[in-house]
Amino acid sequence: MKLLFFHYVLIASFSLIWNEVESVNPCCSFPCENGAVCVDDDDTYTCDCTRTGHYGVNCEKPSWSTWFLSFVKPSEQTKHFLLTHFDWFWWIVNNVKFIRDPLMRAAYFSRTDFIPVPHVYTSYHEYPTMEAHYNRTYFARTLPPVPKNCPTPFGVSGKKILPPPEEVANKFLKRGEFKTDHTNTSWLFMFFAQHFTHQFFKTVYHSPAFSWGNHGVDVSHIYGQGRERENKLRTFKDGKLKSQTIKGEQYPPYLKDIDNFKMQYPENTPEEQKFALGHPFYGMLPGLFMYATIWLREHNRICTLLKNEHPYWDDERLYQTGKLIITGELIKIVIEDYVNHLANYNIKLRYDPDLVFSRNYDYDNRIHLEFNHMYHWHPFSPDQFNISGTTYSIEDFMYHPEIVVKHGMSSFVNAMSSGLCGKMSHHNHGQYTLDVAIEVIKHQRELRMQSFNNYRKHFGLEPYKSFEEMTGDAKMAAELEEVYGDVNAVDLYVGFFLEKSLPTSPFGITMIAFGAPYSLRGLLSNPVSSPTYWKPSTFGGEVGFDIVKTASLNKLFCQNIDGDCPLVTFTVPDDIARETRRMLVGNIKDEL
Amino acid sequence: MKLLFFHYVLIASFSLIWNEVESVNPCCSFPCENGAVCVDDDDTYTCDCTRTGHYGVNCEKPSWSTWFLSFVKPSEQTKHFLLTHFDWFWWIVNNVKFIRDPLMRAAYFSRTDFIPVPHVYTSYHEYPTMEAHYNRTYFARTLPPVPKNCPTPFGVSGKKILPPPEEVANKFLKRGEFKTDHTNTSWLFMFFAQHFTHQFFKTVYHSPAFSWGNHGVDVSHIYGQGRERENKLRTFKDGKLKSQTIKGEQYPPYLKDIDNFKMQYPENTPEEQKFALGHPFYGMLPGLFMYATIWLREHNRICTLLKNEHPYWDDERLYQTGKLIITGELIKIVIEDYVNHLANYNIKLRYDPDLVFSRNYDYDNRIHLEFNHMYHWHPFSPDQFNISGTTYSIEDFMYHPEIVVKHGMSSFVNAMSSGLCGKMSHHNHGQYTLDVAIEVIKHQRELRMQSFNNYRKHFGLEPYKSFEEMTGDAKMAAELEEVYGDVNAVDLYVGFFLEKSLPTSPFGITMIAFGAPYSLRGLLSNPVSSPTYWKPSTFGGEVGFDIVKTASLNKLFCQNIDGDCPLVTFTVPDDIARETRRMLVGNIKDEL
Repeated sequence: MKLLFFHYVLIASFSLIWNEVESVNPCCSFPCENGAVCVDDDDTYTCDCTRTGHYGVNCEKPSWSTWFLSFVKPSEQTKHFLLTHFDWFWWIVNNVKFIRDPLMRAAYFSRTDFIPVPHVYTSYHEYPTMEAHYNRTYFARTLPPVPKNCPTPFGVSGKKILPPPEEVANKFLKRGEFKTDHTNTSWLFMFFAQHFTHQFFKTVYHSPAFSWGNHGVDVSHIYGQGRERENKLRTFKDGKLKSQTIKGEQYPPYLKDIDNFKMQYPENTPEEQKFALGHPFYGMLPGLFMYATIWLREHNRICTLLKNEHPYWDDERLYQTGKLIITGELIKIVIEDYVNHLANYNIKLRYDPDLVFSRNYDYDNRIHLEFNHMYHWHPFSPDQFNISGTTYSIEDFMYHPEIVVKHGMSSFVNAMSSGLCGKMSHHNHGQYTLDVAIEVIKHQRELRMQSFNNYRKHFGLEPYKSFEEMTGDAKMAAELEEVYGDVNAVDLYVGFFLEKSLPTSPFGITMIAFGAPYSLRGLLSNPVSSPTYWKPSTFGGEVGFDIVKTASLNKLFCQNIDGDCPLVTFTVPDDIARETRRMLVGNIKDEL
Repeated sequence: MKLLFFHYVLIASFSLIWNEVESVNPCCSFPCENGAVCVDDDDTYTCDCTRTGHYGVNCEKPSWSTWFLSFVKPSEQTKHFLLTHFDWFWWIVNNVKFIRDPLMRAAYFSRTDFIPVPHVYTSYHEYPTMEAHYNRTYFARTLPPVPKNCPTPFGVSGKKILPPPEEVANKFLKRGEFKTDHTNTSWLFMFFAQHFTHQFFKTVYHSPAFSWGNHGVDVSHIYGQGRERENKLRTFKDGKLKSQTIKGEQYPPYLKDIDNFKMQYPENTPEEQKFALGHPFYGMLPGLFMYATIWLREHNRICTLLKNEHPYWDDERLYQTGKLIITGELIKIVIEDYVNHLANYNIKLRYDPDLVFSRNYDYDNRIHLEFNHMYHWHPFSPDQFNISGTTYSIEDFMYHPEIVVKHGMSSFVNAMSSGLCGKMSHHNHGQYTLDVAIEVIKHQRELRMQSFNNYRKHFGLEPYKSFEEMTGDAKMAAELEEVYGDVNAVDLYVGFFLEKSLPTSPFGITMIAFGAPYSLRGLLSNPVSSPTYWKPSTFGGEVGFDIVKTASLNKLFCQNIDGDCPLVTFTVPDDIARETRRMLVGNIKDEL
């Protein structure tokens, strides 16, 4: 690494005048290894090896205990292989509590330990600050920004000037033919992801380093953020949320029926298409409206149950306890239905907060900018939606929540469970979302985010040595080489989609290694998952606690839809998937 | 406890109609023991014993492990006795690292474990809510409010209608003769307390349940809270804060020299008496202005040192790193000079965050309302101040920060170190602060704070059985009996001052048992005290880290005052104290 740095200085001397070379930050080459902190001192640097388990100028030499640990600890790749093979072994694990529990605990900790607590960096400080902790309007940063005044955007690797985000996106991300996800992920999953994550991914418009959210699963996407907004959605009777009945079904109230309530709808949208929802953007897509509706019904159902249990409780207590139960249910569903679908490990993750009480957990979660960017899963989106025989384009869907009402909840959920998502890979961002990808890449550069390979290192993965190793595709490797010049200088967001995909998951290994720590930490550091909250009394007694402990996606829908329960699944059943693929218009390049 | 409850119902039946009796909350008698949670179910209740280590209807029976632990664990009283006697033993402890470190760790944990993490209650919810965690404008509550609709303000004990706060304050708190503190606490200590704590005790005016602060040691009292206010105090050159030179000394800038900066001064205050300080109230007393000035000088001194170490660092990095060093110094001084003075244990507490890394600490501190109320230490304040021969009444002091400039920093500090504080006991709230005490008692009742004895239980102390046991004074016990009727029904704030005092500390045992957990938790959960921050690179390298690790009150003043260093101490030296007591006007009842 040091060699690399001096190598650069040598080259630079030819092209720059002496003054400019002098001001190059020696930390640009990221000389410190194993998570050590680089401090620049004029023309040299120091690596702070504190608590890295390493020593040496670049903290490259392991201490004896670190050496021994690394010797017995399997690599992230090996772990992933073990977790996705040997079904018989995992069957035993999943069914024998005394084997399962320690493994589950190890799984939790091995993930969440990747996230530094408390976090240290903001997008404007590549060094620790008090701001990072006390100014909660910042998204946290897992890795510090690339130092200022570096020879190249990623430090010393790659080209001096990166190809414009538009060029990169058009070349590598733009959808040609719609490719379907090889693990049969359903639209129900996709909208769950969008609905769930926008409670905490709340980027301040035009200030991508900042968030207006609460940095966690605060259920503000259901109830509204802040007491004032919340109150407008409450009936203040028996803890319930305002609702209305349309065509015999319970739906959120119309916007016009709530004074001074802000929602984002295009001008001239007819009143019967404008609903008042917790999150101001959730009128945007019927899939979001579906989830908003189903959670509203669940909250009101819970309040009725609580009122039966505690006839003397006042509205406030019923409401607040209902909210706690909904939070518990949500986390249970996210871990056991949602995360299990996307990681697809043979060990089935369980929501069992007791397991992590052994170590005092930090309950101050922060949303990291990298997590937010990673979660831009727009390739999931198809170009059109088929609901009970009607085909809707994305444009037909936008700001038409009333489509759910038209078809009825049951039919709509059925369609969502039957629709196939797009494949999470290169050349699969649809025309309506390509701009979002371009914007993310722009933000990453503006906020000096480190390269894809640097992030792989942080999450315990070996950096890729070549574009071919990364993509598994010679042609694309050559194109990438031409655009980026160096495998150590690839935009993080681009890397996620260009990386070869895994047969067992919708994502590549980096996205899984990246996403799981942030997700699990966020879910396990929720107050509900803490020793002071995780007890029957918090949820109004055993009845409420049981609702939380036995929640599932299926129950969420089936207990809140009259009549027969529709198909409720994050994985489109094989026969439907086969049929859908056949029916898709045009030539479908299905990468099964 | 249950008996007590039924006893009440019996009495109540005579005086109330049936409907009203029916609505009495059975949790009013606090039937659940050992920290268990009471849930009311119509006319009965359930105790949730989860993780209390007890079982039984009222969680009154210890499990085997709890029983064994309570058998070997000394009581809080015993611990306090051990910690304040056997000097020779503690001399060894303080000087032998391998004995000291585990004891120090045990001391830290035995204190901080009293604070539930994450906290659960607000002043408006006597049950857990998501609000408690996510709505950071609430002060946290250690114990939930007394349930609504209880027979008496403290549940079932004591009188139905409490004597008015004014009556209580006049009877028990109002100063007659000024009594001096028997441990010789100096004004320098008193103003340190005030200056330090108002960075996080920021009660919203007219809304005593709410805070406008950041819930921790964020040094906003020095730098200003929020980026906008901070920026107005910065020079944006070499990391330094704005300052001016008056009579050859460095002071904060005048208010008139900073555009649009808010400070609280009475109308018509001359411009040369109005300074711009981090905290808007700190122009109120010269003692606060003294600390604001000394920290400003220290910050600018640190920036000069950092600039020498890192000539290429920009203003922002120098400023932010300076702020981190100041935070570290502040915590070091608070633990080693300040807390050691007030607890006066034979084991000298050390700021050694490494010791608590063994258990993952929670870095999300919250300020508890009880902590805020406890910290109303107004009896410390004398009726007048003597500065180099000039006598100032409290009125002369109010909003006259320029008194420091007039006498010069050195003389002023000398006077502060020589002045004796008032005794922290009954009948010692001066005329200017009695109203504050009345207000605190009002707030405690308005927010349904539990009784003094209930809080003693929470902090591991035996509840007092009689007023005589509590006060150690038969006359006062009789008066209290008359006013409150029941030793289980005393206002928390009143209890602190009516309790008999300890010979070794300015406070009674409850205030120490109460204050230490909140303080230590706040200080050890500061980001600076965390594994991700506590390393040389955070403080700009070894030079900065050493400044933090060797900071002391004495250095803080001596390194920032030209010429000979004045007397700098939290304990007035015996000879000066004797002289001061002799000189005090009137009959001094000195309770040495």
